[in-house]
Amino acid sequence: MSSAWLLPEHIADVLPAQARRVEELRRVWLDAARGYGYELVMPPLLEHLDSLLSGTGHALDLKTFKLVDQLSGRTLGVRADATPQVARIDAHLLNRESLTRLCYCGPVLHTRPASPQASREPLQLGAEIYGHAGLEADLEVTELALEGLQASGLCGLVIDLADVRLVEGVLAGLGLPELDEATHTAVVTALTAKDVGALRELAAQGALASAPRAAEVLVTLTTLYGDDAILAQARAVLPSHPLVASALDDLAWLSAQLRQAQPGLRVGFDLSDLSGYAYYSGTRFAIYAEGLADALVRGGRYDEVGAVFGRRRPAVGFSLDLKILAEVLASRQGLAVRAAVRAPWGEDPALRQAVRALRGQGHTVVCVLPGHEHDVQEFDCDRELAQIDGRWQVRAL
Amino acid sequence: MSSAWLLPEHIADVLPAQARRVEELRRVWLDAARGYGYELVMPPLLEHLDSLLSGTGHALDLKTFKLVDQLSGRTLGVRADATPQVARIDAHLLNRESLTRLCYCGPVLHTRPASPQASREPLQLGAEIYGHAGLEADLEVTELALEGLQASGLCGLVIDLADVRLVEGVLAGLGLPELDEATHTAVVTALTAKDVGALRELAAQGALASAPRAAEVLVTLTTLYGDDAILAQARAVLPSHPLVASALDDLAWLSAQLRQAQPGLRVGFDLSDLSGYAYYSGTRFAIYAEGLADALVRGGRYDEVGAVFGRRRPAVGFSLDLKILAEVLASRQGLAVRAAVRAPWGEDPALRQAVRALRGQGHTVVCVLPGHEHDVQEFDCDRELAQIDGRWQVRAL
Repeated sequence: MSSAWLLPEHIADVLPAQARRVEELRRVWLDAARGYGYELVMPPLLEHLDSLLSGTGHALDLKTFKLVDQLSGRTLGVRADATPQVARIDAHLLNRESLTRLCYCGPVLHTRPASPQASREPLQLGAEIYGHAGLEADLEVTELALEGLQASGLCGLVIDLADVRLVEGVLAGLGLPELDEATHTAVVTALTAKDVGALRELAAQGALASAPRAAEVLVTLTTLYGDDAILAQARAVLPSHPLVASALDDLAWLSAQLRQAQPGLRVGFDLSDLSGYAYYSGTRFAIYAEGLADALVRGGRYDEVGAVFGRRRPAVGFSLDLKILAEVLASRQGLAVRAAVRAPWGEDPALRQAVRALRGQGHTVVCVLPGHEHDVQEFDCDRELAQIDGRWQVRAL
Repeated sequence: MSSAWLLPEHIADVLPAQARRVEELRRVWLDAARGYGYELVMPPLLEHLDSLLSGTGHALDLKTFKLVDQLSGRTLGVRADATPQVARIDAHLLNRESLTRLCYCGPVLHTRPASPQASREPLQLGAEIYGHAGLEADLEVTELALEGLQASGLCGLVIDLADVRLVEGVLAGLGLPELDEATHTAVVTALTAKDVGALRELAAQGALASAPRAAEVLVTLTTLYGDDAILAQARAVLPSHPLVASALDDLAWLSAQLRQAQPGLRVGFDLSDLSGYAYYSGTRFAIYAEGLADALVRGGRYDEVGAVFGRRRPAVGFSLDLKILAEVLASRQGLAVRAAVRAPWGEDPALRQAVRALRGQGHTVVCVLPGHEHDVQEFDCDRELAQIDGRWQVRAL
C-alpha cells in the first residue's frame, strides 16, 4: 500500500453522503441569511499577511499558514478566520455609510487543530452587521443563528449569553490601573477556563495584588453561570461600574427578546465565558445542542474589528463550522440515501428524451452504462425507466 | 490610505452581486450533476506534496504553493487542481469495483496566474466517471457539461472535439522511435499553439529528423480544425495507424451523438489541441461561448490518472472555473438586484411574527433598524410591511 494517499493529520476528505449534507447545510444557512437581507461575499483564501492579521492578536498569527508570493516576494497568509476579511470588505470595498449586512461561507486552514479532534480545515460560515451600535443588531444576528440551526434540523438548543464588558467593568470597578497585555490575557484565559487556582495566583501578584477584592470578585465571576437568577446575583455581587451595569441591562433585554421570539429556547448565562475574546467588545453568545459540550455557533459584538482598516464601525456577527454541524447531524439522524431512477443506456432518441425530461423535473436518473448492469448502485434506485407498450415510462422497482 | 487592504496580484474579493451569481451557478451545476447521479465529494485544500503531485507532471508542480506541516515537518501542497484528488478518492477511499460518478466544487490556488487576466484562485467545479472505458462515459460527461452551461443561461455554445491518441498515432505512424520527454513536450506545446515554425525546427533535428514526413504531417495536423469535413480530411492525410483510426472513429460517433441530442449545438474539431494534456489519454473536448476566445469548460478521458494510487481505472470528466463563468454571464446579462420586502423594526410580537412568516415563505425581509430609515438599501425593496387596519400586511412601494 503506497503512502501517497495518506492525508496529513487533522485533514480529511469529505465523502459522498456527508458531502451532500454539508452542501445542503450551506444552502440552508445562506438562504436563511438571504431571507434576512445579508449579502454574500467571497473573500480570497490568500492575502498579504499584514492585512490578514492586522489587529487580530497573536493566537490567529500562530494558526495561520504562511507562504511566499512568487510574484511579489511578500509573505502571504492562508486565512485562518474570515471575519477580519469581511471587516476589510465593509471598510474599503463597500465603504457604505449605511448599515451593511454580509455573509460568507468558505474553507479556512489552521496550522494546528483547535482541539484534539478538530479538523485543520473548517468550513466557516458567518453573518455580520456593520454600522449599527444598538442591541437590535445583536438580537438580529442571534435570531438568524438560531434559525439556521433549527432549519438545519437541530432541536433542543441552548443559548448562553455573556458580555466582554463585564470583565472590563469588573477590573475597572476594582480600582485597578490598566493591566499590561500579558496579565490581561492571563486573566481572560483563566476566567474562560474557570480556573480558580490560576485566578487566585494572578490576584496575589503584580498589578492585581493592589486590589484586595480582586481574587474574590474574579472567582465569583466564574460561578456566575446558569439561568435568569444569575443576572440578579451578578448585580448584587459584582463591583458597581457603568460597564457592568450596561452589560447586565443589555443581557436582560436580549434574553427577554429571545425568549419572546422562541418560547421553547433555553436561555442561560455564562458570564466569564470569553472564548475567542481577541476581537469581541460587547455581548457574546454561544449556542449549544443538547448533550454537546462544545458550542456549535459563537458570535457577538466586535466593534473594533474594522479599525485597523481605518474604519471604526460597530459590528456584530457569528460564525460556525458547517463540517462539525454536519457531523453532529449525522450522529443524530443517520445518513439519508437519495432516491433515484435507474435507466438503461441506449441510442434511442425517445429513451434519451425521457431521461432528459425526468432530470428536468428534478429527478436523479442514473444511466446504467453497458456492462455495468450488475454494479452496486450508490443511489437508492427505487424506480426504473422501462419501455412499456412502446413508450418509456417510470415504474417502481 | 493604509496598504493593509491591498490584495496580492491576481487575487480578488468577490463582492455581493457577483458572489450571489457564483453561488447560484454552484447550485445549478451541482444540481445538474446530481440529476445524472454524480456523488459530491470534498477533497481537502491541503495534502502531502507527494500525494498531490504524483503522476501529474511538472506544470502542476510549478503551480502549487508549498507549506511546511508543523505537526509532521513534511511538505504540504495547497491543491492547484482537484482532479488528482478525486482520482485518489476513487482509488482508495471508495475503492468500488463498480462504476463511480463523482463531482466536486471548491477553490484551488495557483502560484502564478494561468494567463495575464487570470485569477490565482479559481473556483473549480468538475464531474468525473471512473470505471467505464466505453465512449458512453465520454458522451455522458460531455452532455452534462453542455447542460450545465445551458442551465447557467449561456446560449450559442460551440464544442471542439479532439483526441490525444491522434498525436500519439501520428508519431507512431511516422515510424519514429519513442521520443524523449523533452522532445515530446516540445512537440505537444508547438501543436497546441499551432506554432508551425517551432514544428519545422523540431522536425529538422533530433529524433524527429529520422522521419522525412514529420514536418509535413505535424504542420498538416495544425490545420485540421473546422467542421465535419475535417474528419474525412484527417483520414486522407494523416499516416495510417490503429490509434489514428480509432480516434477518428470515436470522434465521428461522439459528434453524431451530440448533434442528435442537441440539434442547435455547433460541433467542431481542433485536432492539434492538446491543452492540459499531461493527464489526458483519449477524447478531449473544449466548450466555448460564442465570441469568447478561451474555453469555458475542458474535459476528456484520462485513464492513467489513478495509476499512481495503485488503481488504473478508466476515467473521463471535465472541469471549469465558476468565477470565470460568472464574469462571462455578468458581461452578457448585467447584474440582477434581488427584490425584497422592507419592514420596520419593533418589539411588537405581531410584527415579528409577520416578518418570520414572510421569510418562511422564501421572501427576503430587510428590517430597518432604528436610525437607518434613510439608508440606501442594497436590495431592491419593492414592497413594505406596514400596519394597515391593525394588521401587518405587505403593500407595494
